[in-house]
Amino acid sequence: MLLVHDIAQSLNLIRQHIRTLADCEQLPLQLAGGRILAAPVKASEDVPPFCRSQVDGLAVWAADTFGASETIPAILAYQGEVQMGRPVEFRLQPGQCAYVPTGGELPAGADAMVMIEQVEDLGDGLRQVSQSVSPGTHLTRQGDDITAGTTVFRAGRRLNATDLGTLAALGLATVPVVRRPRVAILSTGDELIEPDTRPGPGQIYDVNRYTLAETVRLHGGEPVISGIVRDDLTILQQALGQALGTCDLVLVSGGSSVGTRDYVAAAINSLGEPGVILHGIAVKPGKPTMAGVCNGKLVLGLPGHPVAAWFMAHWLAGPVLAWLQGSQPLYKPTVQAMTACRIPSNHGREEFVLVTLQNGDQPLAVPVFAKSGLITLLSRSDGYIRIPRDCEGLPQGAPVSVYLL
Amino acid sequence: MLLVHDIAQSLNLIRQHIRTLADCEQLPLQLAGGRILAAPVKASEDVPPFCRSQVDGLAVWAADTFGASETIPAILAYQGEVQMGRPVEFRLQPGQCAYVPTGGELPAGADAMVMIEQVEDLGDGLRQVSQSVSPGTHLTRQGDDITAGTTVFRAGRRLNATDLGTLAALGLATVPVVRRPRVAILSTGDELIEPDTRPGPGQIYDVNRYTLAETVRLHGGEPVISGIVRDDLTILQQALGQALGTCDLVLVSGGSSVGTRDYVAAAINSLGEPGVILHGIAVKPGKPTMAGVCNGKLVLGLPGHPVAAWFMAHWLAGPVLAWLQGSQPLYKPTVQAMTACRIPSNHGREEFVLVTLQNGDQPLAVPVFAKSGLITLLSRSDGYIRIPRDCEGLPQGAPVSVYLL
Repeated sequence: MLLVHDIAQSLNLIRQHIRTLADCEQLPLQLAGGRILAAPVKASEDVPPFCRSQVDGLAVWAADTFGASETIPAILAYQGEVQMGRPVEFRLQPGQCAYVPTGGELPAGADAMVMIEQVEDLGDGLRQVSQSVSPGTHLTRQGDDITAGTTVFRAGRRLNATDLGTLAALGLATVPVVRRPRVAILSTGDELIEPDTRPGPGQIYDVNRYTLAETVRLHGGEPVISGIVRDDLTILQQALGQALGTCDLVLVSGGSSVGTRDYVAAAINSLGEPGVILHGIAVKPGKPTMAGVCNGKLVLGLPGHPVAAWFMAHWLAGPVLAWLQGSQPLYKPTVQAMTACRIPSNHGREEFVLVTLQNGDQPLAVPVFAKSGLITLLSRSDGYIRIPRDCEGLPQGAPVSVYLL
Repeated sequence: MLLVHDIAQSLNLIRQHIRTLADCEQLPLQLAGGRILAAPVKASEDVPPFCRSQVDGLAVWAADTFGASETIPAILAYQGEVQMGRPVEFRLQPGQCAYVPTGGELPAGADAMVMIEQVEDLGDGLRQVSQSVSPGTHLTRQGDDITAGTTVFRAGRRLNATDLGTLAALGLATVPVVRRPRVAILSTGDELIEPDTRPGPGQIYDVNRYTLAETVRLHGGEPVISGIVRDDLTILQQALGQALGTCDLVLVSGGSSVGTRDYVAAAINSLGEPGVILHGIAVKPGKPTMAGVCNGKLVLGLPGHPVAAWFMAHWLAGPVLAWLQGSQPLYKPTVQAMTACRIPSNHGREEFVLVTLQNGDQPLAVPVFAKSGLITLLSRSDGYIRIPRDCEGLPQGAPVSVYLL
């Protein structure tokens, strides 16, 4: 149970304990962007709801135009103009035509559009068409986009801008989405102080609450900043118990020193079954990460170092937030680059190496070598590369995928 | 003025008319993620504010350990333990050592840390150190991360999760960010209806308001849905005038038919100088896009087709929103792939071709061939490729960058 897993193994282990939140809420479309569908969406009507023109032009019987050209045009009887958004009061007979603007409804009988550029008004209610069109030309038939009854989106779909458009086209003004997971964020450490106080000797500001809250927000969670917890088992048990009672996931950062680390594990084990399921991950930075489950709720014990805490929140809490919403983890975009120099790594752990990107024929990934634990490291980097656990580093000029920050 | 530009040329032209919004607001850090800094941030104090240990271990004079090893250890006098977050009341003299937990402050005099694993307690207040450490080992000196007085972030920085951590480390609880640009979203067309009504013959739901609002939101703007405007010059002038009075940018979609397009241009020209600056862009889909400026405010006239409207909002309104906030356009991540088949393109316009990605040794980009104007096209695609204006298409197996949706 307490073996050192890598990130993928850790996620597999954690995933077994995650259940999708059962609660959903009905949201107006304009608030549903980025949210996860709680139920499949079936089309109750055809989209488009009628046969629409894609151009400004004449609706025709295609057969009337067969063989028509500049030299041998077809002559059709003009029946009038279709008004946007109004019922079409007439039916087109063979030999007849009608003007339809882009997006307008074709009169019954018509089965093709001729662009207005190919039409000449001969007067006396006659129009000359100098092009042969086949049935279906320049029109979108009723249901071409979505047929009534089809499942448009499955549950778990993360709604993007155009998905909202699709839902709107179906006449939906609201949509059922999974409730945002509430994520408690606790920072442990006797040295930590609130942002609006002045630090005394040996004291530093609590940094992780902001980094973690924003990371949670970006992954679709609702951060609940639960403040600073002193290095005391009883106080930690109390704070953790409260967080577990009100939230769906708990992030505890800190406990970098041996004593505090033990408190976090002890508190998790005291608050429900099965307790700690994972203690230590084969990754640098991030090794002292732990995971516990108390009666179905996950607690992630993250390192105190801001950089390590961010990496672990991004790689572990991110997927957990997707699973809690019944969805898939967010895609992490990468850029292809070449290492600018040799990058050693032989820690027996997977390593995240921060880099800046320099432009060139192929972008160069330049490692940011600096002391660990500096909060500004991430702000000074463009991204990072992952060096696998069993790799002794990368030579200069090696192709690498750079994850963007 | 009315020549057909490509996207880059159009953006260059538009950019000349954009000024950064002067208003800023002071936000608590936890609300500032994704926002743009309105002023540079200087560090008023050192980070860290004191010399901190990176490990659990003994603070020492490094010189006392020089030459120490398993066989010839150094013997030091133990002076006590540093408590996290408390003042260190003693000073370390040569020959002395003190316990410091990870993140704790080093006593004055000490210039290195020895990890606790390298230490043995000999009793009688003596500790044995079996490793030679050099000055600076396992510690972060005061100001190592940020030195007081340095500029940490410039104005225009888009604040990410770890930037918030950096600001917190400086003791800042609030930060000045540029006000979110307000973006009016108008949909024109007599065929359009509100989402909570039932369509009559020839009527369709307004789709673009949602697609555009979410796109605006993702680019840092505040969408203001201004509803549906009938195809009538006076009504359009009135709606546009009101939008210009209350918002920083106006998006008008629709007007796919010739008549309406003319109304939008006429309305822009009637509402301020210089009026329409761009009419038509050499891109597919998106050609009927126009841009106008009325007394310093930009109006983008977008196509009515949802797919075209989305592309143009993403490629034009996105950068404009960044510029309005004094920042750079968002990076658009791509994936390297290979075309699965020949993709023709010879329109004299740059073309966006929607694709799905199929996994393989190298991902395959499979074009989504379908009638234009279908709103579900984007939802059914993974991304798109850009085929340049002067390119007659791509052969099968060509390397392409796929922009992700």
